[in-house]
Amino acid sequence: MKATNDFVLVIRDETVSEKNGLVIPNQGKVKPHTGTIVSAGSLVKDGNIKNGKGKKVLFHQTVGFELEYEGVTYLVLTANQIISMP
Amino acid sequence: MKATNDFVLVIRDETVSEKNGLVIPNQGKVKPHTGTIVSAGSLVKDGNIKNGKGKKVLFHQTVGFELEYEGVTYLVLTANQIISMP
Amino acid sequence: MKATNDFVLVIRDETVSEKNGLVIPNQGKVKPHTGTIVSAGSLVKDGNIKNGKGKKVLFHQTVGFELEYEGVTYLVLTANQIISMP
Amino acid sequence: MKATNDFVLVIRDETVSEKNGLVIPNQGKVKPHTGTIVSAGSLVKDGNIKNGKGKKVLFHQTVGFELEYEGVTYLVLTANQIISMP
Amino acid sequence: MKATNDFVLVIRDETVSEKNGLVIPNQGKVKPHTGTIVSAGSLVKDGNIKNGKGKKVLFHQTVGFELEYEGVTYLVLTANQIISMP
Amino acid sequence: MKATNDFVLVIRDETVSEKNGLVIPNQGKVKPHTGTIVSAGSLVKDGNIKNGKGKKVLFHQTVGFELEYEGVTYLVLTANQIISMP
Amino acid sequence: MKATNDFVLVIRDETVSEKNGLVIPNQGKVKPHTGTIVSAGSLVKDGNIKNGKGKKVLFHQTVGFELEYEGVTYLVLTANQIISMP
Repeated sequence: MKATNDFVLVIRDETVSEKNGLVIPNQGKVKPHTGTIVSAGSLVKDGNIKNGKGKKVLFHQTVGFELEYEGVTYLVLTANQIISMP
Repeated sequence: MKATNDFVLVIRDETVSEKNGLVIPNQGKVKPHTGTIVSAGSLVKDGNIKNGKGKKVLFHQTVGFELEYEGVTYLVLTANQIISMP
Repeated sequence: MKATNDFVLVIRDETVSEKNGLVIPNQGKVKPHTGTIVSAGSLVKDGNIKNGKGKKVLFHQTVGFELEYEGVTYLVLTANQIISMP
Repeated sequence: MKATNDFVLVIRDETVSEKNGLVIPNQGKVKPHTGTIVSAGSLVKDGNIKNGKGKKVLFHQTVGFELEYEGVTYLVLTANQIISMP
Repeated sequence: MKATNDFVLVIRDETVSEKNGLVIPNQGKVKPHTGTIVSAGSLVKDGNIKNGKGKKVLFHQTVGFELEYEGVTYLVLTANQIISMP
Repeated sequence: MKATNDFVLVIRDETVSEKNGLVIPNQGKVKPHTGTIVSAGSLVKDGNIKNGKGKKVLFHQTVGFELEYEGVTYLVLTANQIISMP
Repeated sequence: MKATNDFVLVIRDETVSEKNGLVIPNQGKVKPHTGTIVSAGSLVKDGNIKNGKGKKVLFHQTVGFELEYEGVTYLVLTANQIISMP
C-alpha cells in the first residue's frame, strides 16, 4: 500500500485505555496518539517522515481519518499533521 | 481520452455492495472507493500518479464528479484527492 | 482572435439536445460540453492546451462565459476549467 | 502616461449603442468592450499585453475603473482582466 | 526619510478644489490624486517606482494614510496602489 | 524526541507566579513565557531556532499546546510562534 | 535579546504627550510612533531593517504588542509593520 501526494499512511498503536476499558485521567493535556508509518507520499517535504517507513510517529488525537482496505485499517494523515518522532 | 491540468480520469471499480444489493455494515470507518487511472494531466506533481495509467488508486467516497463521454463514465478527480495506490 | 493570460477561447459544439429540441435524460451524471480551441493565452501552463489550437476539449457545463465579437460567439474559459481532450 | 505595476491603461472604444442612443438587444451574451492599450506596467506577465501599446484589447464590461487626467479618460485595468486581442 | 518594505512615501499635490474652496463636479469619474515620490522601499517590485524619487505618481483617492513626522505630512502608499506615472 | 515539519518542541520554564501561588500584577503588558528547545523540525526556516537545541526561547502566552509523552510534557510550537531568544 | 523569524524588537520612544500629561491635538492625521531597533530576525527581507540595529524606525500606532523581559519592555513588530526610517 503506497501513499501518494503528501499523505502518510499510519497503523495506529492500540491505546492502553481502550484495551483495558479504563480511562486514564487526562489532566487537561493532549494525550498523543502514536502509530507506525506504513508509507509516505513522494510530495512529503520532511525527510525524516518521507523516509520513515516503520518508524513511530506522534500526532494529534483529532486529525486524520481511518481508511479500511483489504481488512487493514489505516490512519490517513497529511504529513504536516505529524508532530514528532520519538 | 487525455486528462489535462492536474485532473485524473479514473474508471471506478464496481463495489460489491452495489452488485449484490446488500450493504456491508460500515462500522464508522471510511470505505475507500477504488478505480483505475485512465489518464493523468501533465500538471500532476506526484510521479506515481502522473505515470500511473492502468494502475489502481484509492480515493475518498465523497470526492470527484462523474463525467460521461461517448458512453463511458469517468470519475474526474484532481490529483490531490488520491490517497494511495495499493 | 488571440487569447491572453491563461484564458482559452473555445467554439462550443452544438449539442444534440439543443438541435433537435428533445432533452436526453441526464441520469444524474454530468454531461460534458465539448468545443474546439480557437486560441490559448501565453500563460496557460498545460502544454497540450497551450498548443491545442483546433483540438477538441471537454469542460464542465457551468463554467465560462460567452463573449460575442464580430458575429462570432466564443466561450471564454480559464485553462484550469478544461478537464480533458478526447 | 506610463502605467505601473500590472496595470494597463486603455482608451475605451466608443460603442455604437452609446453613440446613436439606441440599445442593441443583448440576447443574454456578454458584449465585449474594446479599447486600445496606451501603456502596460512593467509587472504585466503576458508578453502580448506588455508590449501591446496601440493594440486593441477585449475586456469584460464590468471590470476596471475610469481615471481622468489632463482631460483624457483612461480605463484602468489589471492585466488579467484582459481576455483577448482581436 | 527612507521608506521600508514595499512602502512608498509621497508628498501629495495640493488640489485645486481644496485651494479655492470650490468643488469641481466629478461627473462619475475617478479624479486621480497626484503626488511626488519622496522614497520607495527596497522591496518595491516595479523599477520605475523603486527608482522614482522626485517623480510624479497617480493613485486612487481612497488609498493610503497620512503620516506626520517633524512637521511634514507624508502619504503612505504600498507600491501596488500606484496606478501610473504621467 | 525529534520534532518534524516546522514544529518546535519546548520544555516550558516553570513560572515564579505558579510556583509560589502568588500572581504578579500584569500592568497590561504581555508577560513572555520562556522555555528551552528540545528539538526543532527540519522545515524550520530560522537558522537560530533550527539549530537551537538547548537554547532558551520566548513565546506568546497563548500559543501552542501541551503534549505529554512518556511522562514528559512538551509545549508544541510552530517555529513562527517563537519571538526571540534572550 | 535576539529576535527570531521576521520579528523586530524595538524600544519605543517616549512620547511628549505622555511625558507632560498633555495631549497634542491630532488633526485627523496618523501620528507616527517611533522607536529604536534592538534586534531584527534573520527572515526579515528588507535589508535596511535587517541590519538596522540601533536605527530609528517609524510604525503605525496600532500595531505590535509589548513584551516585558527582565525589566525591559520591548515592542514586538513584524518587519512589514515598519513604514520608514527617518
